[in-house]
Amino acid sequence: MRTFEEVLHEAQSYGPRTISVACSHDLDVLTSVSEAMDTGIADSLLFGDAEKTRAIAEKNGLDISSASIVDVKDPADAAMKAVQAVSAGDAEVLMKGLVDTSVMMKQALNADYGLRAGRVLSHVAVFDIHDYPRLLIGTDAAINIAPDLEQKRQMIDNACEFAHALGITTPKVALICAKEKVDPKMPCTEEAGQLVEMNEAGSITGCTVGGPFALDNAVSVEAAKHKGITHPVAGRADILVTPDIEAGNILYKSLVFLGGAKSAAVVVGARAPIVLTSRADSSETKLNSIALAVLQAAANAETANADVI
Amino acid sequence: MRTFEEVLHEAQSYGPRTISVACSHDLDVLTSVSEAMDTGIADSLLFGDAEKTRAIAEKNGLDISSASIVDVKDPADAAMKAVQAVSAGDAEVLMKGLVDTSVMMKQALNADYGLRAGRVLSHVAVFDIHDYPRLLIGTDAAINIAPDLEQKRQMIDNACEFAHALGITTPKVALICAKEKVDPKMPCTEEAGQLVEMNEAGSITGCTVGGPFALDNAVSVEAAKHKGITHPVAGRADILVTPDIEAGNILYKSLVFLGGAKSAAVVVGARAPIVLTSRADSSETKLNSIALAVLQAAANAETANADVI
Repeated sequence: MRTFEEVLHEAQSYGPRTISVACSHDLDVLTSVSEAMDTGIADSLLFGDAEKTRAIAEKNGLDISSASIVDVKDPADAAMKAVQAVSAGDAEVLMKGLVDTSVMMKQALNADYGLRAGRVLSHVAVFDIHDYPRLLIGTDAAINIAPDLEQKRQMIDNACEFAHALGITTPKVALICAKEKVDPKMPCTEEAGQLVEMNEAGSITGCTVGGPFALDNAVSVEAAKHKGITHPVAGRADILVTPDIEAGNILYKSLVFLGGAKSAAVVVGARAPIVLTSRADSSETKLNSIALAVLQAAANAETANADVI
Repeated sequence: MRTFEEVLHEAQSYGPRTISVACSHDLDVLTSVSEAMDTGIADSLLFGDAEKTRAIAEKNGLDISSASIVDVKDPADAAMKAVQAVSAGDAEVLMKGLVDTSVMMKQALNADYGLRAGRVLSHVAVFDIHDYPRLLIGTDAAINIAPDLEQKRQMIDNACEFAHALGITTPKVALICAKEKVDPKMPCTEEAGQLVEMNEAGSITGCTVGGPFALDNAVSVEAAKHKGITHPVAGRADILVTPDIEAGNILYKSLVFLGGAKSAAVVVGARAPIVLTSRADSSETKLNSIALAVLQAAANAETANADVI
């Protein structure tokens, strides 16, 4: 896929999938949820202040008549019930509403009824960049602060599963550092070398891993040529793995706020995808993020069916 | 200044300044040096294989007749002599030719005849970004790997002196992290808090320092508003200080290779500016980098004159 229009179209073919919203009494959230229902990619289960939720929808002309609304006034309680709805199989996507991320994630990670799947959760962003010939995935701008080697391995697994859900069969994963050579003064280059070896040895599968790269070597065929880099990932990355949260966040925001890219994002690695949009996101970004979650949810359901058969 | 055209125009008004080139027998370098001479921003002192230097120029129609050429075949020797020419006051800018960066920098940092000025050297890049209303300076994409608090303080001093040379009287310095709040789990946010205090206490001068910021808070007035951030630097940064070399390099390369920005760069903090362009840079980038160095050299000369008076 090259654009978010295609993502949305693909999500429509897999929809509607049910979204469980924690604290639904918020205009931004209701706007994107009602758009997701309108486009046929989602149904919704809204946990929050029912009266406020209905009043906001009515005042703003949002049709949420097909949504199920459960009246829960306390934010932590609403988050708990939203998570439990996903655990119970009543919904396939968890979405944050008017509740602190930390409050919702605490519920999502609860040992009894949470959504842990035995690996790290990670943030994957998708960028539609004017001059890049395909959608580009970046990880991690928001969750893993300073991931170690094993956490990076799991972040790659998460991002690759997500890429598969987007129809990228064998994603090209580029490990981004400040240079394209392993250098003991820059630990992330050494880890990149180890992750490439793990991929070659078959302990990271479903993708081709290359690196260390400087960003230009990963996204520009010409820049890679200048450096004499011939790795199949060079210049053609589908997934950029940044070394820490600062690098990931700066990549995300430079592309969106200075580079004119369109973006959307979802948290993966749990039993269900989690949508954590922020108030600063455009409604387009929010809808696209729901679409990404729907595709991941559809892929999860297929894997579960395959397990049963 | 808003564009590199203005930078070039300004450099012309301060030119020509003499550039000392280490290992001049290289087409890329001779092209940019001859352009710099053509535009009147530079004279040049070329250290390298004189015969090859002349042959390359002739074959490619480059007029280097006004350059002084010193025949030095060994790269380390040529780098030494190029550095010594700057030390002796025969040139005001050092430029890397066909020699490894490490070989040239070793000479530039030599305790006897090198260019150290008692503080860290740092890399400053300038970006002309389509949607940003002024030139944006980023530091450090290439030299300081994991700067500590004191090194960051000196990097800020370097970048501010450089901004002054560009005519930005009181640059707005944004300390970029992954979020806009001090968080003990993210050490760069704590350092950002300390650097802001140092600015408020008067131990970092000539600028307004703000942070920690996520990148969007620093470059988008709207994003800053969304977060309720009212600091004068918020949304209006002139200088972005990234926490480490990975973040700095990724910022630089995402803007240039994915964001369509124009860029140029120079190394500052030594007694003379150093131009370290790479083969992958366009000839426009190389010329603009020389122009930045010329402006820094002109500012250095003014400071030196003021000291004498």
